[in-house]
Amino acid sequence: MTMKNAGLALQFKDIESAAKRLRGHAVMTPLVENDELNRLVSARVLIKPETLQHTGSFKFRGAYNRMSRLSAAEKKAGVVAWSSGNHAQGVASVAAKLGIVATIVMPSDAPRLKVEGVKAFGGIVRPYDRYSENREEIGTELARKTGAVIVPPYDDPHIIAGQGTVGLEIAYQASERKATVDLVLVPCSGGGLVAGTATAIRTLVPTARVFSVEPAGFDDTARSLASGTRERNDPAARSFCDALLLVTPGELTFPVNRRMLAGGLVVTDAEVEHAMRITFGVLKLVVEPGGAVALAALLAGKIDVRDRTIAIVLSGGNVDPALFARVIGS
Amino acid sequence: MTMKNAGLALQFKDIESAAKRLRGHAVMTPLVENDELNRLVSARVLIKPETLQHTGSFKFRGAYNRMSRLSAAEKKAGVVAWSSGNHAQGVASVAAKLGIVATIVMPSDAPRLKVEGVKAFGGIVRPYDRYSENREEIGTELARKTGAVIVPPYDDPHIIAGQGTVGLEIAYQASERKATVDLVLVPCSGGGLVAGTATAIRTLVPTARVFSVEPAGFDDTARSLASGTRERNDPAARSFCDALLLVTPGELTFPVNRRMLAGGLVVTDAEVEHAMRITFGVLKLVVEPGGAVALAALLAGKIDVRDRTIAIVLSGGNVDPALFARVIGS
Repeated sequence: MTMKNAGLALQFKDIESAAKRLRGHAVMTPLVENDELNRLVSARVLIKPETLQHTGSFKFRGAYNRMSRLSAAEKKAGVVAWSSGNHAQGVASVAAKLGIVATIVMPSDAPRLKVEGVKAFGGIVRPYDRYSENREEIGTELARKTGAVIVPPYDDPHIIAGQGTVGLEIAYQASERKATVDLVLVPCSGGGLVAGTATAIRTLVPTARVFSVEPAGFDDTARSLASGTRERNDPAARSFCDALLLVTPGELTFPVNRRMLAGGLVVTDAEVEHAMRITFGVLKLVVEPGGAVALAALLAGKIDVRDRTIAIVLSGGNVDPALFARVIGS
Repeated sequence: MTMKNAGLALQFKDIESAAKRLRGHAVMTPLVENDELNRLVSARVLIKPETLQHTGSFKFRGAYNRMSRLSAAEKKAGVVAWSSGNHAQGVASVAAKLGIVATIVMPSDAPRLKVEGVKAFGGIVRPYDRYSENREEIGTELARKTGAVIVPPYDDPHIIAGQGTVGLEIAYQASERKATVDLVLVPCSGGGLVAGTATAIRTLVPTARVFSVEPAGFDDTARSLASGTRERNDPAARSFCDALLLVTPGELTFPVNRRMLAGGLVVTDAEVEHAMRITFGVLKLVVEPGGAVALAALLAGKIDVRDRTIAIVLSGGNVDPALFARVIGS
């Protein structure tokens, strides 16, 4: 696999190294199965609930893998990150564990829960306007002025490798229960989680096909996979999947995804709401909109899964109570 | 331990036998840990989410252990059960798996979700009034007329042994992560889950103390443990913990609990609502009121847990969306 992946930001051994580093620090989330869901889709579904990860999303993995490798001097200088909320909480939580000062550039319309989560870990929040300001410029300028280290949300080899431990665990946990995954569906925004997960899965289970899943209007990865170049979303697009609202695939993640993915699936907000009602009523799990897109693609029949074994990543569960109450009550 | 338990309805070997029988049929639910919850209570908390069990509660375990032992003739005659909802769904689900006709006597005010759950498995529902009719008489009469076998909710050795596999798994899963439980808190109504769990835990971890937890007004087990005889609740008592509204401890379960438990804890509905908001916002798990009483006791400080390792059983997650929405939104 090393040859095949040559030139990519990520090698399988980087994910193994991340797994070693995360042991005893990240939660090894379970792989859960539900009879009723299996019946609903006539397939065997293995659910990976990263909702049960520290800070309620997979983002802790990449942040810990990156930040635990900082030198003593870098740790002292602090870190800067930008994020719609989940990476923010992951970075703030790791910073608290490692004694690092973290400043996070967050959209002013980020869910209150996520902003409060960052502050609870002692993180400093710098708000910006999601639609008129550039968060990378703000973060880069902050880092330049303070000497802090930037912890990017996805375009960093250690971040991608950390998220890839999700795929490593899926492959091992499936094999423990004598299952071999045929299909893996992963929520996608910048593409770090799916890039890492696909690299791990395709190395350990070469027959498996891995798909990114995005909300309609934010299907830049699906379109980029089809066209072969990094496409951009219409700035006028809107979705309630607050974690998945980026405009274009990552510079490092896209080449990995182009090599590793079988394609990109797209779901509507209505399909995501339905999936959230199923996670509530059937799986008994709390999942945020962006965390439910892969399950939404499965339930909406975006891909033929009959009699297959399919792994679904539920990437996060940080949802404001009022929104959740509205969705399950409707 | 066999000598010490002599005369009781349940021996440790019965739980081991149940575990063998359940393997590959029941879900081995994970044991999950959450940094934020640990910080909240200054203790190490190991959560056993039986919400992830088939039919969304632990009841599948006992039902499967009992019903899979029926003879071919008994299976053909069908089964009768009475239940506020979770045992009903457990029995209906096992009946569907084993090709048995199941009739369930359920309170007319049972959550719609639980009634629909039973019907979805092909179970026949016979409604009764929780406060004026006797469900055991109705069920016994049905069984007499049809020749069906009664599957009691808790007063049956195989049922108690099946529920006891929860305790077996807690002990083994804790030991896998190098933890030894000091305290175990278990929701209690008829007392089958806590009796089985306590027998397993006290056999494998003799230093552990196990407590039942009940809603205020339905604290018959707590008072019975204190007085030494089976006390009854005031028929005028009300609680929103619909799964835990029985009037007196079980005939078989109480002698086990009297021998095995360190005591009984009691929580108010307001304390349970707070616990449900924590399972939503921190644990990202959907838990029904009755399923959250043990966590409620922990969070309300009903027992000193500082620096201890404490296992909490979340016994069920079958809650109507409107109720859940109200609780998390308030």
